Amino acid sequence: MLTLTGLTNIPLVQPGDDLPEILLDALDHDGITLSDGDILVLAQKIVSKAEGRLVALSQVTPSQEACDLAIKVEKDPRFVELVLRESSQVLRTRPGTLIVEHRLGFVCANAGIDHSNMQGRGGDPEEWFLLLPENPDASAERIRRRLEEASRKRLGAMIIDSHGRAWRLGVVGASIGFSGMPGLVDMRGQPDLFGYHLRITEIAVADELAGAASLVMGQAAESIPAVHVRGFPYPLREGELHELIRPKDRDLFR
Amino acid sequence: MLTLTGLTNIPLVQPGDDLPEILLDALDHDGITLSDGDILVLAQKIVSKAEGRLVALSQVTPSQEACDLAIKVEKDPRFVELVLRESSQVLRTRPGTLIVEHRLGFVCANAGIDHSNMQGRGGDPEEWFLLLPENPDASAERIRRRLEEASRKRLGAMIIDSHGRAWRLGVVGASIGFSGMPGLVDMRGQPDLFGYHLRITEIAVADELAGAASLVMGQAAESIPAVHVRGFPYPLREGELHELIRPKDRDLFR
Repeated sequence: MLTLTGLTNIPLVQPGDDLPEILLDALDHDGITLSDGDILVLAQKIVSKAEGRLVALSQVTPSQEACDLAIKVEKDPRFVELVLRESSQVLRTRPGTLIVEHRLGFVCANAGIDHSNMQGRGGDPEEWFLLLPENPDASAERIRRRLEEASRKRLGAMIIDSHGRAWRLGVVGASIGFSGMPGLVDMRGQPDLFGYHLRITEIAVADELAGAASLVMGQAAESIPAVHVRGFPYPLREGELHELIRPKDRDLFR
Repeated sequence: MLTLTGLTNIPLVQPGDDLPEILLDALDHDGITLSDGDILVLAQKIVSKAEGRLVALSQVTPSQEACDLAIKVEKDPRFVELVLRESSQVLRTRPGTLIVEHRLGFVCANAGIDHSNMQGRGGDPEEWFLLLPENPDASAERIRRRLEEASRKRLGAMIIDSHGRAWRLGVVGASIGFSGMPGLVDMRGQPDLFGYHLRITEIAVADELAGAASLVMGQAAESIPAVHVRGFPYPLREGELHELIRPKDRDLFR
């Protein structure tokens, strides 16, 4: 049985907050005792906020490239400048749409940068933007290690965001970094029930779990930004986001 | 709490089998009593098999188009003929790869057609292929209605397959048809915690659930071809696959 429990007692996270401590408190509040094999899935927003990945738009000076692109996509040139700084390639542009390869390797809109509501920081709350964590694999690793130390259990941790897809409408949860769990599971050479070899060779189990956790978070998301997972049906191992990134020469849709 | 339970007592499904009856027996075997809001997620294979969507390759005469394409993709021309019959458009071809728009609207490899191991039907078991259900929404609807009648509960049902993606490696579970549940949830106009409007407007909740259920099925899949879901966090309603299909003119990656 796979069980996903949204943690209901997570306060609004502020830059510098100790996220593992907050998670341990929230688990305790919800009566969850960590066991070997459990995974914590975190919404990107709380990790980014805890790491202080906030940028005030008024502090950004757009490049000429950003200004030119801003006209095409009909967005604020300073916002476009932030997107470009976080991206390795611009893939598609349309009025209102800017799809890039993030410097971390995955494809998403606006480099995952979102408007942030920073209350109590003074100034216009509209002008703050939140970047993705600098290195989500490393963030997941740090959080996982702290939770493992506190619980003395073998755990996994993953950070997710909501991504649009080619061909299908709507966003789904997608992994942007993880630690202590597999990204892909390779089924090559595994016989099926009849002893034939399976046609499908690799399952993106981290993204399947990201979808599941995203479902539990919903999109009001700041209210349930962390999900506890029990019963993940594959053995835990070391893993990293890179497993999930399709090399350009194996991608027919870029 | 979202709970997914793989049904462990499903026999090998044969053409003509009464799938709702098999599911009810399996639920009973695993001690699960259906409740309002529960969803049954089924692997495409068992639905297709029960509906007799098997084709013997020896019975297929390939068209000239199929023969030409077969050379490009290095596949059996009769198999390619089956794929073309199930497709509305060929999107990409490479040696070993044939990506199409299925006549049902979604994009996938080989029109979802897979080799099938039909034991006890005589002849070479290698030569049987399994097409997707004729109308997965209708299949899900029939199964759901039967389960609702038997349980007197309000349920959802969904049929999933494993799909590759642009940009990311590995397959993930994707919905190919459903009944009694939402495909997309529209968040437009919903304020976030601070009263701002959310940027992300539509969540593909059916695909998020498909990922979750696929995770539980694993890929040895014929052993756990059905998953019981409790705690789906959105209200059930009527729905259909069409919700999830991105119109061509809104797709920048075709």
